[in-house]
Amino acid sequence: MGEPTELRCVNCGQLFPPWSLDYACPDCGPDKGSLEVLYNYRALGRRLTPKSFAETQQHSLWRYEELLPMGREHAVSLRSGGTPLYSCRTLAAELGLRGLWTKDDGLNPTGSCKDRSTAVAMAAARKLGRASCSCASTGNAAVSLAGFCASAGMPGFVFVPETISRPKIAQLRAFGVLVFAVGGTYEQTYELCSEASAKYDWFNRSAAVNPMNVEGEKTAAFELWEQLGGELPEYVVTPVGDGSFISGLCKGFRELVQVELAASTPAVFGVQAEGAAAVAHAFARHKQGQTILPATEPAQTIADSINVGRPRDVLRAVRSVAETDGDFVTVSDAEINEAAQEIARRVGVFAEPAAAASYAGLLRLLDRADIPAQARVAVMVTGSGLKDAGDYLDGLPGPIVVPPHLEALAEHLDL
Amino acid sequence: MGEPTELRCVNCGQLFPPWSLDYACPDCGPDKGSLEVLYNYRALGRRLTPKSFAETQQHSLWRYEELLPMGREHAVSLRSGGTPLYSCRTLAAELGLRGLWTKDDGLNPTGSCKDRSTAVAMAAARKLGRASCSCASTGNAAVSLAGFCASAGMPGFVFVPETISRPKIAQLRAFGVLVFAVGGTYEQTYELCSEASAKYDWFNRSAAVNPMNVEGEKTAAFELWEQLGGELPEYVVTPVGDGSFISGLCKGFRELVQVELAASTPAVFGVQAEGAAAVAHAFARHKQGQTILPATEPAQTIADSINVGRPRDVLRAVRSVAETDGDFVTVSDAEINEAAQEIARRVGVFAEPAAAASYAGLLRLLDRADIPAQARVAVMVTGSGLKDAGDYLDGLPGPIVVPPHLEALAEHLDL
Repeated sequence: MGEPTELRCVNCGQLFPPWSLDYACPDCGPDKGSLEVLYNYRALGRRLTPKSFAETQQHSLWRYEELLPMGREHAVSLRSGGTPLYSCRTLAAELGLRGLWTKDDGLNPTGSCKDRSTAVAMAAARKLGRASCSCASTGNAAVSLAGFCASAGMPGFVFVPETISRPKIAQLRAFGVLVFAVGGTYEQTYELCSEASAKYDWFNRSAAVNPMNVEGEKTAAFELWEQLGGELPEYVVTPVGDGSFISGLCKGFRELVQVELAASTPAVFGVQAEGAAAVAHAFARHKQGQTILPATEPAQTIADSINVGRPRDVLRAVRSVAETDGDFVTVSDAEINEAAQEIARRVGVFAEPAAAASYAGLLRLLDRADIPAQARVAVMVTGSGLKDAGDYLDGLPGPIVVPPHLEALAEHLDL
Repeated sequence: MGEPTELRCVNCGQLFPPWSLDYACPDCGPDKGSLEVLYNYRALGRRLTPKSFAETQQHSLWRYEELLPMGREHAVSLRSGGTPLYSCRTLAAELGLRGLWTKDDGLNPTGSCKDRSTAVAMAAARKLGRASCSCASTGNAAVSLAGFCASAGMPGFVFVPETISRPKIAQLRAFGVLVFAVGGTYEQTYELCSEASAKYDWFNRSAAVNPMNVEGEKTAAFELWEQLGGELPEYVVTPVGDGSFISGLCKGFRELVQVELAASTPAVFGVQAEGAAAVAHAFARHKQGQTILPATEPAQTIADSINVGRPRDVLRAVRSVAETDGDFVTVSDAEINEAAQEIARRVGVFAEPAAAASYAGLLRLLDRADIPAQARVAVMVTGSGLKDAGDYLDGLPGPIVVPPHLEALAEHLDL
């Protein structure tokens, strides 16, 4: 259980012994040289059956311990993973789909899919005997690290842009870590955290640079497979900021094939905001045969969790999606708002704007027939609407203020 | 599965056939005559084993279908229950306890324990073929009903006090139900919903009056038992507003004894805010041999979810707690604030103020030795801190605003 065999650089393919490096390939550097954890898939394939995971009786992502880099004895208490998957039959029928599922990763312990990566990164920190952890993020990853540090009783240092939402700041302050609100872009925030982590020897859980993140994120793919009774949908649509979560999803699907629990991976589609679309642009260039390079672009979207101008996992995200025959799509802030409202009204899942971008993307993909009629599609909802409760509701009716008398109701009821 | 035998009035003990009444005992009325769902416990005791629930492979409260009023074919998609239980070893040691567990019911689908009651109440509405649902509440129950109505595609009508928190209003608006913000107290809000539900034939899921709520809430007790490996703690501490959730918890523990899965129930302690303590006061009167009567008192606490002046389930709550040899305790708003901060900092669970009242109560109970040293205690955390993110953090340090330069950090780090 939890026995990685190698670390491989996603850029140059160089192999390193497991646990020999914390972050990136020394030759390719942090911008391109993300490391990927490899396992003995042949041996795992012989051992694992469709029922192996249920037998652990774990409801967290440690259910998939066999495919994680360490055993659950290193885990922090907070329970990540095991989030619900909802079948949306009426909505599927209306959209002409054979199946539509929504996975609510907002029900992770601090309210986002980032708890998956933190769970494995913090377990790595404990296995390695590290004394403190750090993270730079647009918000959710920092909040997640803060919660896990509180749970583990470990000092934490987090770096967020000054513009982070009020609820996320409230979470950070409550969890008692040291919070730096950086007067600069997310890119500068990220750099500052990297430098400080190197200088002060903090275990840096920032996206991309830490290979453990993807190991946690891939468990969303395993859950999807298990929740659909050992089947995979044909298409999976997910929001993309840094490119880390989508890389994790793709790795999860790939590993299910490698251990012979699935025949093939779904086509994975990444969704970005039109105003912060550096990964989508890199993917478009890749399709035209150009080299995938780290790129910095202006970033401006209401969906703060994916408001990323310099995505840190662009190389891996582009290659991973290409391997699944997927693609990228961009959506406007107005479409994101509308999607968040639609998911709440029709599915009963209150999503933050970034988390609803996947549904906006699905509508676009159906429109341009990238996803065909009668397909089976899963949509990832990556964070809770309570993380950013409100501004996108501006177009919706407010409560009807009434005095406490029955007569006052009648005029508002069309019954 | 899901076969109730009778409904019993908690006041006069009269028995009614299952499903023969929607709300309260017609003789005792809604203020006293809450109905309790009974089952054939002897038959269930013969059939159920400690492993029966795991065999269902359900991770929601439908895992306990055998002890619920209907089968899961009536369930709405949103997944209630299956929330994590955290063992807090360091904190337990510091408090001189042998065991301390925190159950995070804020990870239910709309962020509070009320999703347990709604899950069963909505399943009842569907079984009964009702066309629409309603609810009055201090916030969380209304939000929960709204989410489930969205998931079920059923019209919903909710009534909340005008003073409800912004995030809760945001959730209500997003879920697309009709929201009435009542210019009056919670008591008037509750009455208005009852009258309108009767007039317009809405299935009313408001606390106490609907016997299905307690059926959902009791599943928290079943989970606690199962998560502790088929054992129960000696003490359970929970916040109390209307008295419905604590009644459900007590019923759950009682039923575990009735079906012979547990030898005895824990002592259950209810915690109220000093400024909204009508159930605690009724319990004190009961201990002096006085009759338990519905009581209206002024209510004023920062913990909005338990800011209840006229608790609707006072009779049942007082009797249930007395049967377990439990008690009530009141805590100040300052203690509630401090408890919310402590749970976040030490356990990594961000709780709304009302939800943290249980931990404040535990500290009081240890202080006055109502809970002895070396005890094993579970603390219920009933709602997410994202529901009310912020004001109670006023005393905590804010983020440190820094420019994006490493030199600027050093002065803030004592390393």
